[in-house]
Amino acid sequence: MVPSLFQERPQTNLAPPKIMTANPITSAKKASTDHPIQAIIADRWSPYGFTDRAVLEPDLRSLFEAARWSASSYNEQPWSYIVATRVNPLEFDRMLACLVPDNRAWAKEAPVLVIGVANLRFTKNGKENKAAVHDLGLASATLAIEATARGISVHQMIGILPDVARDLYHIPEHSEAWTGMAIGYMANEDELPPGMKERDLTPRQRKPLSQFVFSGTWGKCLLSLAPTHE
Amino acid sequence: MVPSLFQERPQTNLAPPKIMTANPITSAKKASTDHPIQAIIADRWSPYGFTDRAVLEPDLRSLFEAARWSASSYNEQPWSYIVATRVNPLEFDRMLACLVPDNRAWAKEAPVLVIGVANLRFTKNGKENKAAVHDLGLASATLAIEATARGISVHQMIGILPDVARDLYHIPEHSEAWTGMAIGYMANEDELPPGMKERDLTPRQRKPLSQFVFSGTWGKCLLSLAPTHE
Repeated sequence: MVPSLFQERPQTNLAPPKIMTANPITSAKKASTDHPIQAIIADRWSPYGFTDRAVLEPDLRSLFEAARWSASSYNEQPWSYIVATRVNPLEFDRMLACLVPDNRAWAKEAPVLVIGVANLRFTKNGKENKAAVHDLGLASATLAIEATARGISVHQMIGILPDVARDLYHIPEHSEAWTGMAIGYMANEDELPPGMKERDLTPRQRKPLSQFVFSGTWGKCLLSLAPTHE
Repeated sequence: MVPSLFQERPQTNLAPPKIMTANPITSAKKASTDHPIQAIIADRWSPYGFTDRAVLEPDLRSLFEAARWSASSYNEQPWSYIVATRVNPLEFDRMLACLVPDNRAWAKEAPVLVIGVANLRFTKNGKENKAAVHDLGLASATLAIEATARGISVHQMIGILPDVARDLYHIPEHSEAWTGMAIGYMANEDELPPGMKERDLTPRQRKPLSQFVFSGTWGKCLLSLAPTHE
């Protein structure tokens, strides 16, 4: 029998995964929305602090299943994911080596690490796929929203070492490791080391719609997009 | 008073937008999932056929608000969206001109068109942002899931003419139009012209997880990711 990478570890918290409910985020991280959006979108954010609670196999399968059903140009599905869990320390360390040191420092506490790979050419004809990296983003956003619905957090990283990943995992030519993801359950405030506490408790900031939704010409905002607080 | 691009048109269907419920898709388009995922993820797909029902302004605002709260590298938020609705035919035709002819043919029926633009350099220091196009994907996927929750469909396109968009909208240097989106309410089966009917009724296909979720080395699938039909 092939051992599962996702075998269960002793759980520090046996609460069942929550489906379709808000993540128990700190009030500081609640998105301060100008217009109403779904809770599983508003509640998604990228923690630096993770507890050592493992992510169970059925949840992980559902995260990748969600990514699977994303849109892609010509339905190419140009995304692949390499997964390592702390259940297998050798494999976990191998993946840690693919992160830049700044990310390694905090991501080593997450129970699951993932490398996202984009296939930069179409499988069918070998031509360049201009949408490949964009479509990896579509899949990873979908994965993160599925995670949020299950009370699981995803922290995506561009700070990875693609060449190290290529060597260690034999990533083929024309595919490239593009992103990393740390996946797990966010730490409680009192479990966070001082430097991390500040990062994980700072309110989330975003540009208003008027600065990135235009019509007619660049930079012209739609006045009707001002906050309404409906 | 500045006229709104989103002013209401006579509605062909006055049903209120549905929040957090499944889209009324045809059974052929229901994702055939191997593992359980959220309905608003499983129900998202990209129709070619749209009805002439307008998308109301509060819904459009919420779509962009959802995109707004996506993750991005260094919180750069490198996405911008240019919007045109059929309420303003001149503006709508201007945006149609930014699509490749094959997309123009069907997208002209959608009530809303959008061009997604990536800012390829960091605002702060002018350095290349390797995550820009990926992060545009994160924002657009989030927008599409918010749309699904409201019974609205989004069909994304890579088939656009970035240079035409740059000229027509004065898109600045280092930013690039990358994607198009047609947004609206999907047509019923009996409203679809013959060629479109086939495309919009073909079941959705995806690679199984075993072909894109690896561990240890490229191409090695996790056996435990086989379908479980829980």
